[in-house]
Amino acid sequence: MSSDASQEQKHTINNGCSVSTGKVFVAVHSGAGNHSKANEYHKYICKKACMQAMALLKKKRSAMDAVTTAVMSLENDESTNAGYGSNLNVQGDAECEACVMDGKSLYFGGVGALSGVKNPVNVANLLVKEQMEGPLPFGRVRPSILVGKGAKTFCMNHGIDTNYNIISKSAFKTYNRYKRKCCISDSNNVAKRRKVEPVDEKINQTSKIGETLSTPSELIQDTVGAICVDQDGNVAAASSSGGIWLKHPGRLGPISMYGAGCWAQNRASDDKPGVAVVTSGCGEHIMQTVLAKTSSDGIRSSEDLTVSLPQVFKRDFLESEFLTAKPEKHGGVLALKFMEASDGNEVELAWIHSTNSFCLAFMGGDQKSPKALMSSLDESCAPGKSFTMGGYLACLERC
Amino acid sequence: MSSDASQEQKHTINNGCSVSTGKVFVAVHSGAGNHSKANEYHKYICKKACMQAMALLKKKRSAMDAVTTAVMSLENDESTNAGYGSNLNVQGDAECEACVMDGKSLYFGGVGALSGVKNPVNVANLLVKEQMEGPLPFGRVRPSILVGKGAKTFCMNHGIDTNYNIISKSAFKTYNRYKRKCCISDSNNVAKRRKVEPVDEKINQTSKIGETLSTPSELIQDTVGAICVDQDGNVAAASSSGGIWLKHPGRLGPISMYGAGCWAQNRASDDKPGVAVVTSGCGEHIMQTVLAKTSSDGIRSSEDLTVSLPQVFKRDFLESEFLTAKPEKHGGVLALKFMEASDGNEVELAWIHSTNSFCLAFMGGDQKSPKALMSSLDESCAPGKSFTMGGYLACLERC
Repeated sequence: MSSDASQEQKHTINNGCSVSTGKVFVAVHSGAGNHSKANEYHKYICKKACMQAMALLKKKRSAMDAVTTAVMSLENDESTNAGYGSNLNVQGDAECEACVMDGKSLYFGGVGALSGVKNPVNVANLLVKEQMEGPLPFGRVRPSILVGKGAKTFCMNHGIDTNYNIISKSAFKTYNRYKRKCCISDSNNVAKRRKVEPVDEKINQTSKIGETLSTPSELIQDTVGAICVDQDGNVAAASSSGGIWLKHPGRLGPISMYGAGCWAQNRASDDKPGVAVVTSGCGEHIMQTVLAKTSSDGIRSSEDLTVSLPQVFKRDFLESEFLTAKPEKHGGVLALKFMEASDGNEVELAWIHSTNSFCLAFMGGDQKSPKALMSSLDESCAPGKSFTMGGYLACLERC
Repeated sequence: MSSDASQEQKHTINNGCSVSTGKVFVAVHSGAGNHSKANEYHKYICKKACMQAMALLKKKRSAMDAVTTAVMSLENDESTNAGYGSNLNVQGDAECEACVMDGKSLYFGGVGALSGVKNPVNVANLLVKEQMEGPLPFGRVRPSILVGKGAKTFCMNHGIDTNYNIISKSAFKTYNRYKRKCCISDSNNVAKRRKVEPVDEKINQTSKIGETLSTPSELIQDTVGAICVDQDGNVAAASSSGGIWLKHPGRLGPISMYGAGCWAQNRASDDKPGVAVVTSGCGEHIMQTVLAKTSSDGIRSSEDLTVSLPQVFKRDFLESEFLTAKPEKHGGVLALKFMEASDGNEVELAWIHSTNSFCLAFMGGDQKSPKALMSSLDESCAPGKSFTMGGYLACLERC
């Protein structure tokens, strides 16, 4: 651990609340990023997503369908960077990605560079379900991840609208604000170096030089996600994102990447706990550290989530050898551990982040309403170099 | 380990050849699959790729450029399932993927669902090089993986032809042979279940029922790859693939997936060896086991490559909890370990596969010609359930 990092790290555990929460549990987040005045609204949408997932869980629907429903609810809200209202790429298009992982079958479904589809996470859910049906005739392997035009073809074959407008007015306004100077610089640089014309001339002609631009941390936007345990003790995880502002068209981030954006593994016969993880933050940092799988591996190999999660986050993310060139590492992890206790089942929930804020909500089956919170780094801590953590312990009825 | 697996496993080590090979080393493969009569030709193209990479290494070019050149050579050969001659998807298009990882910077570049580009691996190489230039203005993160139309835009911006014909006559003939019955069945099934019209009606109208179709193992095709050590002791890895026959358009396989298709990590200051790994075989199996990274992690944590590689391959691939639903697991790994010895540097090379065959070649800097071989499973062993392994030890001059 570097001495700088050790000085700046902060670690607060809010663990210990112990209540019976029925057989099921769900937790959602609307992103590890920079939340400010919209705090209360973000808490509200997280609560709403929790309740929609819980309604399904109480009808004995699967963990996979519950996390998908929670993420669809967040995708449908304009304020999140997922589905409608997603960040726009450098060409002014919204290209989304989403993933679902089922802890029972261990199948993963992902979509990337997908435009014009209202709920990308629903497509990822369908990809998992089709894998569960077994191989295609003559042993042909079913796809796990689909991107771009081919992902649209899959949607059309499944009766999903591929002409839905997911570009919000607000996203378009922000796009224009960020675009002006960024792209003049970039295009000129590319053109000089490569001796080719920039592709997005039309946009450049309307640009103005001299506007004050955002700092890098302001450009880091939210990915949403959900994790849960269903009445049969199965776990699942799902994430969705519009990717980073002004990204290159066709850029894949961690959410369509196996092991990076979500992970779920049921409790194993050898007494390893069930684990579900979703991640958020700077895409390339999350991908290069395969953060969801790495977190899950750490959690499964240790007894105490509140010990293993910060260990993994510090060693394998903030101090990762893969990120030494990055001055700041922006990420967040929401994880649950599901295990058998002497008098029932137990869900341990924890969240950790190096971003300024992380908005989340969670709910057990016998609770009337979800608990929502905006976890924030202390003002004295440097984002991208320090972290804060919180947790919650719930006792569940035995499945 | 299951008893069935233990009965069927075969493990042959051909290790021990010790020669001085100058400062540099390269190894390439043309795929873990089902080679038969074309054996000699596949050995020839592997040798040719080795020599092209070696010519660069002797000019003090980087490991990353050497593996890219080796893979470009294999992409350009019609007989491999990469670049020109790639397998066609269900719509009759060739959609390629490729990746490069640089062991020094640890940057990864990948492309997926890319059509009309002669050398996809060259695009992956450019993505790594651009990441080395640092972030874009205003902290915008450079892309690591690009897919589909956006990847084509990147190519156009870099003066790369995006209208190159990569569909060979032979690939088109094989496509028509496999297509006939497969797609009639699939489309009808999809249409019945989803109550939608199949998208590829035009092709279905020309189909004929009744042709004898291939077995699943015949449909598993080759991915090509290369690993090397350059004169500065840097390692790199690169892979390229056309994906599986009749895949869904837009399907991403392991080669564009971080950690699955290739991995490279230089020797670390804590005396962990340098490792470079490339994988081949059934894409979804390789992806679900994150096979390249998993193999590298195993190799780096053990002294002896010939012990760690089969351990990892058996535990984390053939007996992986993520592949329990798969009756056969088809994969191959080519790996090198680069370490300091008392009287110079040492490269240990090993290959392992559960497919019928694995064609490869390797060469040290002071050798006149590469050594090529077709490694094959013993006839008594069941492909997808058993494995064979081989290795080679080379002493290098100190960097």
